[in-house]
Amino acid sequence: MKAAIMGFGTVGSGVYEVLDRNRETVRKKAGEPIEIKYILNRRDLPGSPVDELVVHEIGTILEDPETGLVVETMGGTSPAYEYVKCCLQAGKHVVTSNKNLVAAHGTELLAIAREKRVSFLFEASVGGGIPIIRTINESLAGDVVEEISGILNGTTNYILTKMYEEGWGFDEALKMAQKLGYAERNPEADIEGYDTCRKIAILTAAASGQEVDYEQIPTEGITKLTDVDFSYAARLGASIKLFGTSICRDGRYYLEVAPVFINARNPLYSVSGVFNGILLNSNMLGESMYYGSGAGKLPTASAVVGDMIAAVQLKDRPAALGWTGQRLEVLPVRLLPWKYFARFEGSREEKKTLTEELFGKVRWLELAGLDEFAILTGPMTGEEFDRAAGQLGGLRRAIRAQV
Amino acid sequence: MKAAIMGFGTVGSGVYEVLDRNRETVRKKAGEPIEIKYILNRRDLPGSPVDELVVHEIGTILEDPETGLVVETMGGTSPAYEYVKCCLQAGKHVVTSNKNLVAAHGTELLAIAREKRVSFLFEASVGGGIPIIRTINESLAGDVVEEISGILNGTTNYILTKMYEEGWGFDEALKMAQKLGYAERNPEADIEGYDTCRKIAILTAAASGQEVDYEQIPTEGITKLTDVDFSYAARLGASIKLFGTSICRDGRYYLEVAPVFINARNPLYSVSGVFNGILLNSNMLGESMYYGSGAGKLPTASAVVGDMIAAVQLKDRPAALGWTGQRLEVLPVRLLPWKYFARFEGSREEKKTLTEELFGKVRWLELAGLDEFAILTGPMTGEEFDRAAGQLGGLRRAIRAQV
Repeated sequence: MKAAIMGFGTVGSGVYEVLDRNRETVRKKAGEPIEIKYILNRRDLPGSPVDELVVHEIGTILEDPETGLVVETMGGTSPAYEYVKCCLQAGKHVVTSNKNLVAAHGTELLAIAREKRVSFLFEASVGGGIPIIRTINESLAGDVVEEISGILNGTTNYILTKMYEEGWGFDEALKMAQKLGYAERNPEADIEGYDTCRKIAILTAAASGQEVDYEQIPTEGITKLTDVDFSYAARLGASIKLFGTSICRDGRYYLEVAPVFINARNPLYSVSGVFNGILLNSNMLGESMYYGSGAGKLPTASAVVGDMIAAVQLKDRPAALGWTGQRLEVLPVRLLPWKYFARFEGSREEKKTLTEELFGKVRWLELAGLDEFAILTGPMTGEEFDRAAGQLGGLRRAIRAQV
Repeated sequence: MKAAIMGFGTVGSGVYEVLDRNRETVRKKAGEPIEIKYILNRRDLPGSPVDELVVHEIGTILEDPETGLVVETMGGTSPAYEYVKCCLQAGKHVVTSNKNLVAAHGTELLAIAREKRVSFLFEASVGGGIPIIRTINESLAGDVVEEISGILNGTTNYILTKMYEEGWGFDEALKMAQKLGYAERNPEADIEGYDTCRKIAILTAAASGQEVDYEQIPTEGITKLTDVDFSYAARLGASIKLFGTSICRDGRYYLEVAPVFINARNPLYSVSGVFNGILLNSNMLGESMYYGSGAGKLPTASAVVGDMIAAVQLKDRPAALGWTGQRLEVLPVRLLPWKYFARFEGSREEKKTLTEELFGKVRWLELAGLDEFAILTGPMTGEEFDRAAGQLGGLRRAIRAQV
């Protein structure tokens, strides 16, 4: 099989490296060698051993009947979308690591792939090298996935880990993440939760078989969190993680991206640093958890190469993967009852009676030297919480708590 | 697709239940309904809604051209082996949950399946519902798996968890496991490590593509462990787990089943109770971990049904799964250097000088009121350890330590 790589950045060059270093393994598993014939890149790569493979026009790949498999590792939606669409329409398998592409155009691209009887695979778009799409689609094919909780963004998990373990402030942790290359110079997509949002949308679409509009998912990042929140968390034996959450209850889907308190009983508690972890709950298997490198050159490339091998094996009978154009109705997670951790201005003594009137039985949390108090409520919906918090007044922070 | 279930015990009836309860999901994923036409069982099931499906002769299934898929959940090797072989030879896909069968006859059955262009799938034979075979075979197809550490037996993990967390003795924990139905009346296969041995053999064969003779794997169970060992472990912030270990170094394979000290830095540390967990290290993805229910009716059945759906999808192009008849040379893990936890008779004061002469720099561990002392050595091979321990004399226990 001859293949092309579109976009030769971190992941694209990683794909080349994996194919090169594990050549024999890949050949054995795929049943034939996979050879990179073209690398589509804006600039030449003078001095690189792959310089002679570089082409600048997508047409070269599209018009080559020998190239049956194309890897898209350009990122972004344009021109990745146009290129991938043309490749599928030309009857070539496409493997991508691009969450933006899959979240925005997955439905259409999957439909074209089905029509053309080629594979469109995207394991690497969520959780880097963790085999989560294949697990949901194949291993749990006989299961109904009822709950997905994912630590899906290594950058934010690194920041939260440092805030928790070292007591760093948000800005300090972000700067270190940038220094180490874990965070972009413009970190918005990570720290505002947009990246996690696209990923939980893709996982939900894979699990439900329906299209998910990620723009409808309530999304909150980690920028508001401070060392004070972590001090309270420590009192509860809890940590704060940024979760992509997807819950199916009675056939209806509740989604959210937001920081969550979890304690050591949650298998995701020990997922630290740039690692990712995904906790599934399905109606037959029950709880299962998947953990590994959610980003990075070779881990992500490993998932791409796994998909390339699958595409070669499956030939013109692609896996029954993905979702249809039927649009899933996204409901906010706050419609369901949760415990809340909440911080309020003022003193516990003054507000104790009113708090208990409004929230019922709560757990009190206090840190010395602060003009505030905090509570852990019993289970209540977001609306119930808002009403009570509004009447009490002076809300400083509210975070869902699974403790 | 019409299917048959051979053996209607816990897992077999679970398969029927999963297919029934998730009928619509299964139909969508498989692309067609999967209907159980026969249940091969020694006795009738009067009063059961499936009684009319019961047959007593394998011939009924073999001779029915409409039945293209057979599930084997009988356990043991005979007549499971003969039945499965006949089914494959008759051109029927076979899905099994039977580790004994796969460990003893996998090579031959895989070869027949390849020849007949049918699927022989066995995800449920290792790790219950955890998708570990598919992960190794497909998701990590472009990776070289260099290390597998598995908590693969829920019974022993339950016993070890109770000894660690509650301070119970071995006998007490075993009795409770039997009472709760986690352990058989004859628990030998679990507590002597034989079950784990077959499972790590299957995983190693899947990862290496070579046949593994499980009888060559050095196998030690958990029966010798006492509360004293756990007290020392606690001093080290460590727990004791029964590991199936498989290490590939420079193309050579080192295997073992034995208790191991691990601390909280190991992702398997928090795998407790009857849960299973598998830690992989592969040359591109790096560390990844898989966690879930390693046994039980519905979790195991969930994996069987996932395989059934795959078999229906793949039709006459089965996955390039499994291993060939090339026999893997099994080397003992003790050839590699490890730290050892070791307990010796006598007093530290008397033996301090000799111990440090023989073992070099060690970490000393002492529990009050015992006529013994313990050490944590630096990395040494099993032979080096044995020689030093023999010269020191009075060895009471030696356990590999990953701390």
